[in-house]
Amino acid sequence: MEIAIPLYDRFTALDAVGPYEVLWRIPGARVRWVGAEARPYATDRGLELVAEATFADVPAPDVLVVPGGTGTLDALADERLVDWIRAADATSTWTTSVCTGALLLGAAGLLDGRRATTHWAYLDRLEAYGATPASDRVVREGKIITSAGVSSGIDMALTLAAEIAGADVAQAIQLRIEYDPEPPFDTGSTAKAPEHIVALARSPTPATA
Amino acid sequence: MEIAIPLYDRFTALDAVGPYEVLWRIPGARVRWVGAEARPYATDRGLELVAEATFADVPAPDVLVVPGGTGTLDALADERLVDWIRAADATSTWTTSVCTGALLLGAAGLLDGRRATTHWAYLDRLEAYGATPASDRVVREGKIITSAGVSSGIDMALTLAAEIAGADVAQAIQLRIEYDPEPPFDTGSTAKAPEHIVALARSPTPATA
Repeated sequence: MEIAIPLYDRFTALDAVGPYEVLWRIPGARVRWVGAEARPYATDRGLELVAEATFADVPAPDVLVVPGGTGTLDALADERLVDWIRAADATSTWTTSVCTGALLLGAAGLLDGRRATTHWAYLDRLEAYGATPASDRVVREGKIITSAGVSSGIDMALTLAAEIAGADVAQAIQLRIEYDPEPPFDTGSTAKAPEHIVALARSPTPATA
Repeated sequence: MEIAIPLYDRFTALDAVGPYEVLWRIPGARVRWVGAEARPYATDRGLELVAEATFADVPAPDVLVVPGGTGTLDALADERLVDWIRAADATSTWTTSVCTGALLLGAAGLLDGRRATTHWAYLDRLEAYGATPASDRVVREGKIITSAGVSSGIDMALTLAAEIAGADVAQAIQLRIEYDPEPPFDTGSTAKAPEHIVALARSPTPATA
């Protein structure tokens, strides 16, 4: 089973690495890191991850995981990326996104008439692609799975692992990555965070308190 | 504030990227990816992350985050890495580890007489370093913070962000990365997973069910 994660400049590292950490552990899985060029791609801030193959090298993966990032809005105009997503989806078993990666699925025409989710600050942008925004953490519509902001890719990937390899394997993977979350606060969604925290999170960079 | 994440061959991507995704969002923070050499380092399976600087380039970071990985047991004998950790700790404000990264802190002599945690499958190895194993998700002893397996680094880093920048900033970061976990199963710790899932997770690779 070939699982492809496309990279582009200023993607969000955890969007991609969260699902990778789950999905490579599926027996028989091979994760491919692809880009318009085979080279390192910069994440939001400093870190680089290496795309070891080009889009042309991996034209028909079984699973796509499309990450979001601060570079996503620019990437929407990157035809090499968007065309590859559209073409890969034509033969994929699962097409998935994390965070604003959903906008790339939308730009590829894959969300028209479907419920979908993305990072909370970008939910209303889904409508431009004919999608119905949903604030669930993971939204499955047929073979398309979209997930909410950044860290949600871990939950999405465990759900996908269970579909692919069964609940026992997914549960064993969850234990292997010791995913028994204990967030120190309960402010991970706009429904739970106080208003001043939402305002701070909406500011360009969180200011010191 | 300089935050250094040391890389070595076959480290676990999420151990490093989980904390990175939280800590780069602290106002004034700069995350440095360092290695014995400035080059790409392979994670457990295929993916490579780039160390943009050498240990010599970043001798005295304010914060260390040491990841674990399938390569950790080999890395314990890498004097360049272990010596750098020991020297960096001498002037750091915070010295932290994720997963089996704790064994590297131990090898550097930093856990002697302290409570510490690591990945559940490696907890008993902490005793060799004079540490008292604790199965808490995040263990703080003075300026040293160790955390449990792989995904726990996100919880650790949010705790650390609150110490560094205050609870409001940490809460805003938690919202920005939409960390409102909804694991599909409740098998993320050995205390919660059924026996056959623990056995499967202990096997070299999770077998198909």
